[in-house]
Amino acid sequence: MNAALRRSTLRSTLRAALARRPADVAGRRSAHSAASFKWTDPLDAESLYTADELAIQDTARRYCQEQLAPRVLEAYRNEAYDPEILREMGSLGLLGATIQGYGCAGVSTVASGLITKEVERVDSGFRSGMSVQSSLIMTGIHEFGSEELKQRLLPQLAQGKLLGCFGLTEPNHGSDPGSMETVARPHPTKKGFYALSGTKTWITNSPISDAFLVWAKLDGKIRGFVLERDQCPEGTLRTPAIKNKTALRASITGMIQMDNCPVPETNMFPEVTGLVGPFTCLNSARLGIAFGTMGALEDCISRAREYALERKQFKGNPLAKYQLVQKKLADAATDAAYGTLAAVQVARLKDEGKAVPEMISMIKRQNCDRALAGSRTLQLTLW
Amino acid sequence: MNAALRRSTLRSTLRAALARRPADVAGRRSAHSAASFKWTDPLDAESLYTADELAIQDTARRYCQEQLAPRVLEAYRNEAYDPEILREMGSLGLLGATIQGYGCAGVSTVASGLITKEVERVDSGFRSGMSVQSSLIMTGIHEFGSEELKQRLLPQLAQGKLLGCFGLTEPNHGSDPGSMETVARPHPTKKGFYALSGTKTWITNSPISDAFLVWAKLDGKIRGFVLERDQCPEGTLRTPAIKNKTALRASITGMIQMDNCPVPETNMFPEVTGLVGPFTCLNSARLGIAFGTMGALEDCISRAREYALERKQFKGNPLAKYQLVQKKLADAATDAAYGTLAAVQVARLKDEGKAVPEMISMIKRQNCDRALAGSRTLQLTLW
Amino acid sequence: MNAALRRSTLRSTLRAALARRPADVAGRRSAHSAASFKWTDPLDAESLYTADELAIQDTARRYCQEQLAPRVLEAYRNEAYDPEILREMGSLGLLGATIQGYGCAGVSTVASGLITKEVERVDSGFRSGMSVQSSLIMTGIHEFGSEELKQRLLPQLAQGKLLGCFGLTEPNHGSDPGSMETVARPHPTKKGFYALSGTKTWITNSPISDAFLVWAKLDGKIRGFVLERDQCPEGTLRTPAIKNKTALRASITGMIQMDNCPVPETNMFPEVTGLVGPFTCLNSARLGIAFGTMGALEDCISRAREYALERKQFKGNPLAKYQLVQKKLADAATDAAYGTLAAVQVARLKDEGKAVPEMISMIKRQNCDRALAGSRTLQLTLW
Amino acid sequence: MNAALRRSTLRSTLRAALARRPADVAGRRSAHSAASFKWTDPLDAESLYTADELAIQDTARRYCQEQLAPRVLEAYRNEAYDPEILREMGSLGLLGATIQGYGCAGVSTVASGLITKEVERVDSGFRSGMSVQSSLIMTGIHEFGSEELKQRLLPQLAQGKLLGCFGLTEPNHGSDPGSMETVARPHPTKKGFYALSGTKTWITNSPISDAFLVWAKLDGKIRGFVLERDQCPEGTLRTPAIKNKTALRASITGMIQMDNCPVPETNMFPEVTGLVGPFTCLNSARLGIAFGTMGALEDCISRAREYALERKQFKGNPLAKYQLVQKKLADAATDAAYGTLAAVQVARLKDEGKAVPEMISMIKRQNCDRALAGSRTLQLTLW
Repeated sequence: MNAALRRSTLRSTLRAALARRPADVAGRRSAHSAASFKWTDPLDAESLYTADELAIQDTARRYCQEQLAPRVLEAYRNEAYDPEILREMGSLGLLGATIQGYGCAGVSTVASGLITKEVERVDSGFRSGMSVQSSLIMTGIHEFGSEELKQRLLPQLAQGKLLGCFGLTEPNHGSDPGSMETVARPHPTKKGFYALSGTKTWITNSPISDAFLVWAKLDGKIRGFVLERDQCPEGTLRTPAIKNKTALRASITGMIQMDNCPVPETNMFPEVTGLVGPFTCLNSARLGIAFGTMGALEDCISRAREYALERKQFKGNPLAKYQLVQKKLADAATDAAYGTLAAVQVARLKDEGKAVPEMISMIKRQNCDRALAGSRTLQLTLW
Repeated sequence: MNAALRRSTLRSTLRAALARRPADVAGRRSAHSAASFKWTDPLDAESLYTADELAIQDTARRYCQEQLAPRVLEAYRNEAYDPEILREMGSLGLLGATIQGYGCAGVSTVASGLITKEVERVDSGFRSGMSVQSSLIMTGIHEFGSEELKQRLLPQLAQGKLLGCFGLTEPNHGSDPGSMETVARPHPTKKGFYALSGTKTWITNSPISDAFLVWAKLDGKIRGFVLERDQCPEGTLRTPAIKNKTALRASITGMIQMDNCPVPETNMFPEVTGLVGPFTCLNSARLGIAFGTMGALEDCISRAREYALERKQFKGNPLAKYQLVQKKLADAATDAAYGTLAAVQVARLKDEGKAVPEMISMIKRQNCDRALAGSRTLQLTLW
Repeated sequence: MNAALRRSTLRSTLRAALARRPADVAGRRSAHSAASFKWTDPLDAESLYTADELAIQDTARRYCQEQLAPRVLEAYRNEAYDPEILREMGSLGLLGATIQGYGCAGVSTVASGLITKEVERVDSGFRSGMSVQSSLIMTGIHEFGSEELKQRLLPQLAQGKLLGCFGLTEPNHGSDPGSMETVARPHPTKKGFYALSGTKTWITNSPISDAFLVWAKLDGKIRGFVLERDQCPEGTLRTPAIKNKTALRASITGMIQMDNCPVPETNMFPEVTGLVGPFTCLNSARLGIAFGTMGALEDCISRAREYALERKQFKGNPLAKYQLVQKKLADAATDAAYGTLAAVQVARLKDEGKAVPEMISMIKRQNCDRALAGSRTLQLTLW
Repeated sequence: MNAALRRSTLRSTLRAALARRPADVAGRRSAHSAASFKWTDPLDAESLYTADELAIQDTARRYCQEQLAPRVLEAYRNEAYDPEILREMGSLGLLGATIQGYGCAGVSTVASGLITKEVERVDSGFRSGMSVQSSLIMTGIHEFGSEELKQRLLPQLAQGKLLGCFGLTEPNHGSDPGSMETVARPHPTKKGFYALSGTKTWITNSPISDAFLVWAKLDGKIRGFVLERDQCPEGTLRTPAIKNKTALRASITGMIQMDNCPVPETNMFPEVTGLVGPFTCLNSARLGIAFGTMGALEDCISRAREYALERKQFKGNPLAKYQLVQKKLADAATDAAYGTLAAVQVARLKDEGKAVPEMISMIKRQNCDRALAGSRTLQLTLW
């Protein structure tokens, strides 16, 4: 499917979505004039979204609730991530959605954030699997790759036909990637190739990836390289899975072990050097996480609220009647509402060219912290 | 000064403000394209303000920093509130600023919030003194008073020539005003008058007020009455001050003691009954507090930051070099940025008719909580 | 093994333990005179233990570290609790250890708490498995059972040859057990028997238990009954496991489903009625939990400290050099030290007959809260 | 009064106290056997006190509640500390109470902590005034002064006839006293004297002190000097007060400004050099603060509890009926109980020679933090 066709497909999806929504969105909008309180969106963040963004949110939510939610329990229990998920997301235009051209949807950063929010409403592992594809490798190639690389890989990645990952963290260097030990050097035997050696770890999707955006030092400078599994001779690239995680179990995580792994010179990002390269990708992912965690928190609120209303203890009182339970819900709802507004603000600023990395650090840190705190607090006991 | 003149005056102020700002606002705007991080506004809330709102913010800030800040230390130490402050605010058009007509400025709710934020940036007591005049009595009269009452009192209140307060809380009824004991009944001797009896307490500005919006029960229903001090015979109205407060010392607080105090029937709000009357006023004030507390918090951040950069301990390191100090500043800056965005969102929704009281409760509670926590945490010790 | 023999065995264990400790405990004691700071026991709680208690702590620690620790990873991953553990504990005299006679060790409540602490230092699930045996069913039978029941069951339970559990919580009644629906009535066909019907849930050890202390209503009053699995006809007692837990995975949890399950009248506790029965048992368990959680927290501290000292990031600095990491460790160490002192105090008071349930509620709530918070905070990221 | 007489006096006080207590302490003790819950001492810390310590606690409490409590409001409002208080404390034997001999009472560290707790139950400023006299200057002289200095000054200080203070902190050196700028050198004109020059600030009691333990550098090494005001020529010693504090207002605080202030060589501590000198004194004071803050917190709990029981809102319910209020009280009560146990433990260890400074840092930090948090949370609003 070429890019024009793809955009047209996404527009159809949106039109269809909009067409479906008279009793829903339109109703929701008119409900605004009556101005009632919606516990699902306490500060009416939806009033800030365009019609297209609302339609994309609906499309994403429908897919996530109908297609992802039923799979999460087994995926989590068995640490079994189904790569088919990325192909499904690709067919809906959800991957690399902010990229213009190259078969991508070219939507706003808010729209992309809402997609992420819907995915993480189901599971943080599913969101992680998508972030790596959309924000890490696709953003990296789109921002820094040669035109040839973009033309060749982005449409495949957008459709989820090619799976990718992002190799920055190393066993000895987590928070401090600048000290990485992975090196690139001219390949000793293959002309026009670099040879990469080193180990990356905690890499989401590495065991199932076809393409690997790996950061390595060439002459002491950090550069980005796109490895393609089918071009790596036996023994030069290994991607063992890390099993028995106690969190994010519905995503697959592994290592990237490279032993003189050959990469064509044309697969190196031509200009970017230093940490600005990986940090650009990470900032894109982190902005998504600021949205995504709010989806996860909203889901916790929704489930806790339902339980608190239904579960009755002591003379038939629902848990929701007790102040201590009410306070947990009120705190979490406040954090979700505030965090969503902040994420929308930074996404808008990004599209206006006004966002700076400090903003993303602020909202990523805060929203993760609040989502984690809220999800823990909302674990109402059995009573 | 009539209303038309007054609006014209405010517009002049704005024009002047705008004229003054080429190197400032314009510069700030163009700086956006360079997209640098401003620690004073980490998530660029200013990008959400109109030019008029930015100009009003500047006018308010200049007044507050130049005229209020120099007075706060003595006011706080001596519990001495200068009523002249309200006249100054009135002359600048800062009182009842969202009201259309009646000599008021008719600005947006965001603009009004920004005024409040600038006042509370100096002192919460000063903000309290203004809130009572703007949000409690002026909003009450404007929403519920007869046209005669509005015409007669609002312009005077807007200019700070008439000072007002709001009597709801009673000694035995704080959180539960519905149980109030103050009663109104037909005056036993004065025809066309009600007689009010009861005591209100913790009333900001009561000792210096000319007009009192008092809520009392008439035939068991809560109604609103506007008492005017100069029409109350000796002994029917007393307004003793409450001294030796340990907080909000720069505002004046007192009681309203009524003993068959006469009020003309025309000074009763004709239609509103029940708690919706006082709660409408309180919601207006609470929305202002959601803005104001963010001003107070920003001031704490600014002072703590400056001290942390200047104060050096242990081998000449500024306090700001220590992680524990950094975390305090980062937490507070996040809360200020989030709280401001939330307040702006609700203010916008209010002007669109989409705000509901639950929203105001949420942001008032959260912003007060965060401002209090931040101001306490930022009290860096001497080290 | 009869009781006298058993006590004698325990004493041998203690003597052996003491004998082993010259370089250890004695060394530790003399170290006290030099008064150095021990990060493992910051407020020197050990100074409050008797020599016997120290010896029991050492015995328990050795068993737990040598025998339990190697098994926990697989048990947690596979939700596979090995009932052999209870037999091992029984052979060491660790079960029902405070009970005098009946083949139990008759140690102090502090000593029992220290045993619990050592078990939970390895895993909360292992501790849960032990608590149910020691504090819930053994305490219940010892406090309330007939002499015949005690003579017959306690020695078996003490040795872990008979496994037991405690049925109070029901699907519809968690926090409010007083509303339980399980009923007992004279058995319709078996003379001298009651018939129990109802469902208990979230019952640690139920799938592997031989004896069940079940609370049920007889003529509207809560009474305690000891069911014995081998006396329950097919279909009257089912104990399905609850799988796929996300916590306490190294313990086994299930339901108790009773359908006219027969219990001899002599297996009913003769005197106790109402909630005082189950609450007496729960208080015993809760006091243990106050100790146990401090063991879990100490283990988290120990592991986090080791990692923070070994893991280096940014110019070779160990994580422990960073203030934010230091604060996490200091906070957790304080909570562990305070919580241990409080637990020791209540245990001492219990042996003096001065403890009241409110004390146990206070320390159970606080120590669980602090252990949970500390364990979460100490999850240092990879950095 | 000589030392023997003084001890005898204290013993009489104790005997009297004990004599007075049959219905009180004895009753309390026997109540223990009934083991009821006392909200004033939830974990029964009193069970850890000796009869002497209980008697001293009673004496101190009676003095504090009867003599200090009535003075605190005016002292706080007017920043007016009455030096007579120290003389009263002296006459009761409360100053430097752990010192053996020199007219001091020679009580246990726990007893001394209980005195401090009773004083701070009334006001932290009063406690501060006492700590400076007892822990800072008296401990300093007793630990490090020449026998002559001890004989001459300690009895006077013990009786509060001589008032003292402790000069360590300087305007540029708060947390880092090792960088102090105050210097001592041989006096240029007075033989046998040193001349001290420099400024100390935030010195409790400096404006009313007769004796000043000042730390200064002599040849680059920190040494301790006892200045006596009546021996300092005009202009060599100034002690201006720092006014308008917003906390600890019932204590008096000031500076010590020295300009070639002469001190006899015999007033220099002969042996101690470096920070071990001042830190020994501070550790003594800090241990007291760990006790004192628990007294302050207990007073907050007591007042909040009384208010929550008496204040009724919403259908006549006392505030204490609401879960959110209950939780505040439960949290604070837990912190007070835990903090007291920890302080008692460290005090006992100190008397056994087993305490180390890290222990004191831990309990001082934690108890201050919890007392501050609790006192703030317990400020129940008017409701």
